[in-house]
Amino acid sequence: MNGLPVRTSLRYENGIVRFIDQRQLPGKIVVVVTERWQVIEKAIKSLAIRGAPLIGVAAAWGVVLAAREATEGRSKGGVEFVQKVIARLRLARPTAVNLFAALDRMVTALLNNENEYFDALLGEATRIQQEDEASCLRISETGLPFIPKKARVLTICNTGFLATAGIGTALGVIHKAYDAGLIEEVLVPETRPLLQGARLTMWELVQSGIPARLLPDGAIGSALRKGVDLAIIGADRITVNGDTANKIGSLQEALACKRFGVPFYVAAPFSTIDPNTPSGDRIAIEERATSEVTSIRGKRIAPESAPVYNPAFDVVEGDLIAGFFTDRGHFKPPYHFDNELVGKGRTK
Amino acid sequence: MNGLPVRTSLRYENGIVRFIDQRQLPGKIVVVVTERWQVIEKAIKSLAIRGAPLIGVAAAWGVVLAAREATEGRSKGGVEFVQKVIARLRLARPTAVNLFAALDRMVTALLNNENEYFDALLGEATRIQQEDEASCLRISETGLPFIPKKARVLTICNTGFLATAGIGTALGVIHKAYDAGLIEEVLVPETRPLLQGARLTMWELVQSGIPARLLPDGAIGSALRKGVDLAIIGADRITVNGDTANKIGSLQEALACKRFGVPFYVAAPFSTIDPNTPSGDRIAIEERATSEVTSIRGKRIAPESAPVYNPAFDVVEGDLIAGFFTDRGHFKPPYHFDNELVGKGRTK
Repeated sequence: MNGLPVRTSLRYENGIVRFIDQRQLPGKIVVVVTERWQVIEKAIKSLAIRGAPLIGVAAAWGVVLAAREATEGRSKGGVEFVQKVIARLRLARPTAVNLFAALDRMVTALLNNENEYFDALLGEATRIQQEDEASCLRISETGLPFIPKKARVLTICNTGFLATAGIGTALGVIHKAYDAGLIEEVLVPETRPLLQGARLTMWELVQSGIPARLLPDGAIGSALRKGVDLAIIGADRITVNGDTANKIGSLQEALACKRFGVPFYVAAPFSTIDPNTPSGDRIAIEERATSEVTSIRGKRIAPESAPVYNPAFDVVEGDLIAGFFTDRGHFKPPYHFDNELVGKGRTK
Repeated sequence: MNGLPVRTSLRYENGIVRFIDQRQLPGKIVVVVTERWQVIEKAIKSLAIRGAPLIGVAAAWGVVLAAREATEGRSKGGVEFVQKVIARLRLARPTAVNLFAALDRMVTALLNNENEYFDALLGEATRIQQEDEASCLRISETGLPFIPKKARVLTICNTGFLATAGIGTALGVIHKAYDAGLIEEVLVPETRPLLQGARLTMWELVQSGIPARLLPDGAIGSALRKGVDLAIIGADRITVNGDTANKIGSLQEALACKRFGVPFYVAAPFSTIDPNTPSGDRIAIEERATSEVTSIRGKRIAPESAPVYNPAFDVVEGDLIAGFFTDRGHFKPPYHFDNELVGKGRTK
């Protein structure tokens, strides 16, 4: 598709980055082709590129584009110029940990190889991308044995190839299970306010030929009563006791799963576990802009003066989670990730 | 407001019906002023007038307008003409029980008073409206003792003066409690897919000066964790064992209330109890149009080909309901409305 492999939303090749402009989905599939790091910066800022792992990978390629500009003489300043670009990219999004982690690695590669920095940066960006791809694959392999035949799977938000450099986390498990012939249908909550389920996940699944149905977030309980085999969601942060921060709506999905006896799994890189946060009540929840709720794609849906409660994340307590699928294997309850983090007590 | 009393969305006076065109809310407050029954018919069909009790009242006034047309000689055919109009109005909405019940009463009034039918129909329409107003008031009085001081109340959908001829059912209790100085804040889920919470309930509350906040349906659990005193919702049908059909999203709200120990009440006319349905699993759930979910106010938000699960109603099992506020008093669990329906065992 326009130079991108299937199930891929961003790639670097020969001095050029190709990426899907996610703001245009699902109406238009626009693949941006660029050799300019400024285009990457702008894409991250404007959410044309989104999903925490993907942002990190995109920023790394942005640094490579800047290094190429410097080594080919199109920009002056060499190493110092690349350092300035890295500083600029760091400001593209305020809270994406993956962005900072990726750029830290690029800075280290740059400063350790000042004479042949282009090759060093190319190598580091390639590793960052490949590690994310491999992590997605291992997560999907961890989850696969838990998917029954003719599975009806519920998810939330977008956790697939539009959010990562690989096949995704929760959606990666679903992609893998579909390839293994196990998926009958994926149920996709629209995920208000930003509609990542409706706009992005439905598009990914339709692209991949995976049978999927969209539902209002309020219909999750009703769908579970009618018959769902399991739910798999992603994670933004996992605390030491297993409490998990993820997209708003995740808690209600977990509670409805419990009501109807449906196992509720979390799929995420092991690095999502935060050893410094003992439990979910220590997670500060970001509240986002009123306009995300009062308008939908530019159309006003509530009175001008309406105040709004718009938390970005839910916390799902560990007691509601049937298991974690990670790139370091499967973890089952009760969760004591302090043991895991010092290398003991892993269940697999 | 343009000839309508406060907290009122439809009134008849001297041959004229005034009503709020609810399709235009919250962007514009359009009060339609008409002496033509065809305008009422069209308004019910197009959802300019909605809410099951309000539809019944509006149709009754439509019959009065037709009768006036006949008695003033603007239409020919007398009683037969009015009968034809009633038959037309009956087709305006397919499933609104209140519509059929109101028109049945109007037919009876017409056929029992063929010589002075205008006065008979005017009287019957007035009674239908006054009974709904009185029912709302009694429901609100039943609920009032359960509202604590500085109450933070959660609701869903729209159940106020835009849905009834009075102050509403669930929202009627809230209006009453606000007048009694008890309400600190009302939390209003937007209620996808048709956004009755965002468009209508927020507008009603802002109009009445009641502090309110709008939230995505997925944020209900998060709001409950932060601190809510009680939830009150309406009902479309209540079965003999207390299982209650109501707007999609109600079940997840009830489950989250249970998780956080918040009482979850249902406010509805006693007539909502269906003596012929023993439990919720006997209720057939209507699935509505795909386009309600794939587009929002004309803007497409999902891929063209996306299949959709769009159930109109949820069923909330009686074990999740802390009490019913009705126009015949309060009912507490366990629910055995077969006893109530033969006049025994009422708790109050």
